[in-house]
This record gives sequence, structure tokens and C-alpha cells, in this order.
Amino acid sequence: MPQAHDSRFMRLALALGRRGRGNCWPNPAVGCVIVRGGRILGRGWTQPGGRPHAEVVALTQAGAAARGATAYVTLEPCAHHGKTPPCAEALVAAGVGRVVTALSDPDPRVAGRGHAILRAAGIAVTEGQEADAARRDHLGFLTRVTEGRPMVTLKLATSLDGRIATADGESQWITGAEARRHVHALRLAHDAVLVGGGTARADDPLLTVRGLGAAHQPVRVVAARGLDLPGAGRMAASLAEAPLWLAHDPDQTRPETAAHWRELGARLIAVPAGPDRRLDPAALLRALGAAGLTRVFCEGGGAFGAALLRAGLIDELVVFSAGLALGAEGRPALGAMGLGALADAPRLRLQDVTPIGGDVLSRWVR
Amino acid sequence: MPQAHDSRFMRLALALGRRGRGNCWPNPAVGCVIVRGGRILGRGWTQPGGRPHAEVVALTQAGAAARGATAYVTLEPCAHHGKTPPCAEALVAAGVGRVVTALSDPDPRVAGRGHAILRAAGIAVTEGQEADAARRDHLGFLTRVTEGRPMVTLKLATSLDGRIATADGESQWITGAEARRHVHALRLAHDAVLVGGGTARADDPLLTVRGLGAAHQPVRVVAARGLDLPGAGRMAASLAEAPLWLAHDPDQTRPETAAHWRELGARLIAVPAGPDRRLDPAALLRALGAAGLTRVFCEGGGAFGAALLRAGLIDELVVFSAGLALGAEGRPALGAMGLGALADAPRLRLQDVTPIGGDVLSRWVR
Repeated sequence: MPQAHDSRFMRLALALGRRGRGNCWPNPAVGCVIVRGGRILGRGWTQPGGRPHAEVVALTQAGAAARGATAYVTLEPCAHHGKTPPCAEALVAAGVGRVVTALSDPDPRVAGRGHAILRAAGIAVTEGQEADAARRDHLGFLTRVTEGRPMVTLKLATSLDGRIATADGESQWITGAEARRHVHALRLAHDAVLVGGGTARADDPLLTVRGLGAAHQPVRVVAARGLDLPGAGRMAASLAEAPLWLAHDPDQTRPETAAHWRELGARLIAVPAGPDRRLDPAALLRALGAAGLTRVFCEGGGAFGAALLRAGLIDELVVFSAGLALGAEGRPALGAMGLGALADAPRLRLQDVTPIGGDVLSRWVR
Repeated sequence: MPQAHDSRFMRLALALGRRGRGNCWPNPAVGCVIVRGGRILGRGWTQPGGRPHAEVVALTQAGAAARGATAYVTLEPCAHHGKTPPCAEALVAAGVGRVVTALSDPDPRVAGRGHAILRAAGIAVTEGQEADAARRDHLGFLTRVTEGRPMVTLKLATSLDGRIATADGESQWITGAEARRHVHALRLAHDAVLVGGGTARADDPLLTVRGLGAAHQPVRVVAARGLDLPGAGRMAASLAEAPLWLAHDPDQTRPETAAHWRELGARLIAVPAGPDRRLDPAALLRALGAAGLTRVFCEGGGAFGAALLRAGLIDELVVFSAGLALGAEGRPALGAMGLGALADAPRLRLQDVTPIGGDVLSRWVR
């Protein structure tokens, strides 16, 4: 049965869980709080690389005081013996009196078994606390388990008229320093940063997280069917700094090009092309899901973003709007989408909007 | 000398003044509050048609109690004998002890004389209270006095990628009902609604204020060099509902077309064309200023809005962003601007941003 403050403690657990995002894939970024008599005895979140789990961190912190306490966990505790004993058993062993969870874990190895272990041990279990917020936070993990692909956030940084560069491709800087800093934080909260081959060829972007003192770097993924990328540019020169995965179609790739990138240390991921010889967006994301990614941050370009949107593969859209106008010759934020009617346009729901520096940041979800 | 609560009472006067906007041109929409001992004795704003002025309304309400009171006025009281005696003299006659104003009136018939009349009568005068806010509120009046043109607000209602319609021109509805209702309120807060000829031909829009119980309608202005507009459409049929002014180039207009519109009751305004045979945007706005307009709300189309922006004639940009994507084939919010470099792009400063229905409303100023 829900109790007073359940909501508050679960929201705290969710906030803690978000600290692990981007750095514990393919594991979910779970948060856990151990509470007794209104006092917080332990706080934990999934650690880098995915181990230890949030519950174990929080229980270790609480020690013997965990006996009879309530554990708030943002996802059903795991029930399967993997590298470590299951968290459900750890909660039982610690003697907690009650467990509150936000969501069941759809992973077939868990799927209710975690809750069942707890109940079988006589522990009171309350499920579904802050379930909506937890579903948003765990969307990447859930989408990978249920659909085999990571969740995808698409970033647009545009002028007031939806342009991302002048006709000549000039785009530094449309948004201000604060917005650009926030983009780096968003990269860090995702497992990987993804761009299309056109952007990689045109900008040869580093795609690393800079200026935040980050202890790790997200994977960089480039979708380039023939691997026709700058072979000796910034991306190629930064393989020691951050992983680089190249999604390509082997049938459209020259073997010596593939060998060049492999030798540099890039990981090559084969993805089938569609009838238009472009990489199939759904197949690309399935391949990234199979490789373990749960949260992908797509930074363009316009044609690639449009292809993902049209395929229904964008879960969240993050738009930075800057106070300038570039006119119709400017490069569009999204490429052609081939819509027949307005009713066919992909629609997203406003999550929140806030000023950031002199720009506007709005977030939209499916 | 400023006193406690001066800021609060002036902000109240400014809020009252805004009630007159759109319905008192070419007069400024002034607000006035009469206060004694912290009690509000009179509140006034410029009445429909411009008379009586705010000060007279507030003084009438205060009656004999105005003696020794403080009057807060959002603009220097007028000093010239027009249809009515000057407000500066009315304040003297009422025996107020102190007058606080936000701005001097740059109108050469006033220009400090209002303040001088008050001081000559022994009244304490504090100028410049909430001057920045007052400059924003009175921007239309000030721009007309100093530059001979109205202030112009440009509205964009776009998809997340800056499109205002599908390739086929379908645009109903991109934004939601709340945003559309807000657009009607914005029309009402301006003296006139302005569109280019392309939009008038394509959409034959009514451009009236609907659903707000409005007691008056803003002027509708269409810029169409040759008056090639739907001669028997909705715009033509609604002349009894709202005034229609047609800005055109007589050299590019067939006399019988001009006669047709005159007979319908439209007011024709001659504007010279530029070397490209389009109406010169600056000349168009000077003509509207000469006709008395102080605040103009431009609702497109994209080419017309881009021409105004490029000419530096947009003072405020109001952007409604809807959560859908239309792709690069969609109609752009702004037409070509001929920018050489990013540094040449018109830049605006964020004033505020807020969710409205499921859309986002952001306001940007020069």
C-alpha cells in the first residue's frame, strides 16, 4: 500500500538513477534510496559499466541499518544470476521490510520474478510509484528490451525560421555558448552520439564531450554506407579519445577503406541498405541495439534526421532556437520527408520549454 | 525624488495603458493612476479613438480627492491644445501634488513642455520611472513620432523545422486552438493586421478578430502592388465588418481594378515600387505611419516577412512553434533573404517564452 512520502523518495531515487545514464549500457540506469523513519540511510545508482547495481550500492551504504527499512528502486530488482547475485536476493538478505518500485522490468529474465522473490520472502511490495516518470527515464532500456533498438533523441539547433546554416554551410555559431554547453551535457547523458555520413564528411566533427570534466566519452557513431569519410581528419585522429563506430553497407564499401578504419581502431558495423541504397534506419538502430546501446543522441544532418523521423524512430526531439533569421536559402533543419498531407506529419508532444542563454530550449516527446 | 511604491504604481499604470492598445491610434495608449496615502483614487487609460486621455479619465474618477495626490502617467502629459485642453493643465487644475512619469513625449508639440507646465505650477515631478517597460509599451507611438512608421510585429506559426504549410499549401492546423486564439488577441492589440499580396491571393484570409467579443476590429492592410486580389472573395465580402486598406503601386494597377476596390469601400494607399517592381517595404510603412497607424501585426507570407526583416523593419517577432515536422518540401516561414554570411543575419533578443496549449510561444525583440 502506498505511504506518505513514497512519491518524494521515488523522485529522489529517479534523480539518482539519472546520474548513471550514458555510462552503464546495456544495463538500465537505476536509482535506489533506503529509508527508515523518514531518514535516508543509503543512496545508490548503477555504477559505470553497469556494476554494482543501484540496490547494492545503497544497501552497502545503509549497512545493518537496512533491516526493516524501505527500499525505493526505480526498476524491478533483477532476479537472475549474472556477474553478481540478483538484487532481489540482496534486498531479502539485508532484511528490508518494504520495497517500492516504479516499474516492472520487461527483461524476460526478470519480468515479475524480482517482485516475486521479494514477496515470497514476506517483504511488502508497492509497484508503480512514479511509473510515468520512470518510463521516461528508462525509455532507452525499455525500448531496447521490447523493440531491440535504443531510444533516439534528435537534436535540432536552428534559427527562428528552422535553418541550421547559411546557404554556404556557415553555422558557427547559431546558438550561444550556454546552449552549446548544454549539448555537451546531453551527449554525456546518452550512450552514443550519432550523425549521418553527410555531416561527417562536411564537418568532420569531433563529437566528443568537452568542457565538462567528463570521466568518460560516449560512443561516436557515424552512418556512412561506403565509409567515404575524411580518412585523416579530426574524427580519425581522435580514436584514442573516444570510441568510433562506423555503420556501413559492406556491399558498398571498398575493402581497403574498411581496413583503413579498422586499423585506426574504429568498430565497423554492417547494416543492410534499402532499395534506395541508403542504410535502412530501422536496421541501423537494431544493429546499435544489438551492440548494447540504449540511448542515442542524433545530431543530424537534416536528411538523416528526416529519415529517422519519417521511420518513426525519434523518441525525443530537443530543439534549440536562436534569435536570428537566415531565410529560405539557408540549410533546412530537416530534409525532405515526402509527406502527402498535414495529417501524415509526425507529431510530438511538448515536454518542457525554457530559456537557455539567449536561446530557447524546447523538448518534445512522442 | 523617487518614493516607495513608485515602481508598483507605475507598473499598474502601464498595465492599464495596454488596455487601449490597438484602439486609440494615432494617439499613444497611456495609462494613469491617482494615488494618495497608498490608496488608489483613480485609474484611467486612453479611450477608444484616443479621447479622453488617460489622465482625464483618472482625474474624473478621483474628483476632489485628487488634490495633493500623486499621479502616475506612463508618458509625459500633453501640453498642446488640440480637441481638448492639455492634460498637463488638467493635472494642475486638479491640484495634484506630485506627478511621476515613465517617458518624455518626443512629439515636438510636447517634448518637455508637459513636464515644464507641471513644474511651473509647483508640482513635484519624477521622470523616467519604469522607462524601459514604457519604451516597449509605447514603441509604436515612439517609432511613428521619431521614424514616421509604425512598429511592426511579425508573427510566425511554424512546425519544429520552420515550415508554415505542406508543399501543397495545407496549413490548417499546424498550431493548436489556444495558440490561434492568442493570435486573435494579438491582432486586437495592434492597430492593423498586415499581409503580403501572395498570402491574400492564396488564402483570401478574413484577418478579423473572432471569438473574443471584440468591440472593434483592427484595420486590415494588404500589400499588393497591382491589386490582383480575389475581387469577390471573403476579404471583399467583409468590408462592413472591418476596414480594408490596400497598399499598391498605381503604375502597376489597372484603373478598373482600383475602382472596383474603392467601390467596395476599401481605402487605397499609393506606395512606390522599388527597382524590382515590388512595393518598397520602408515606403509602405511610412505610408501607414502617415495614415496614423502606430502598431502593425504582420502575418506573412514568407517572402513579405523576409523583405521586412531584411530591411530592418521588424521590431518584434512572435513565434508559435508546433510539435510536428513537415520536412524540406514544406513552405518556409521566411522567404529568401540574400544573406552573404551568418554575421549579416538579423539577430533578435529573447523577451520571453511560454508554453501555450501544446505549442510554444516565444517573443523576440530587436
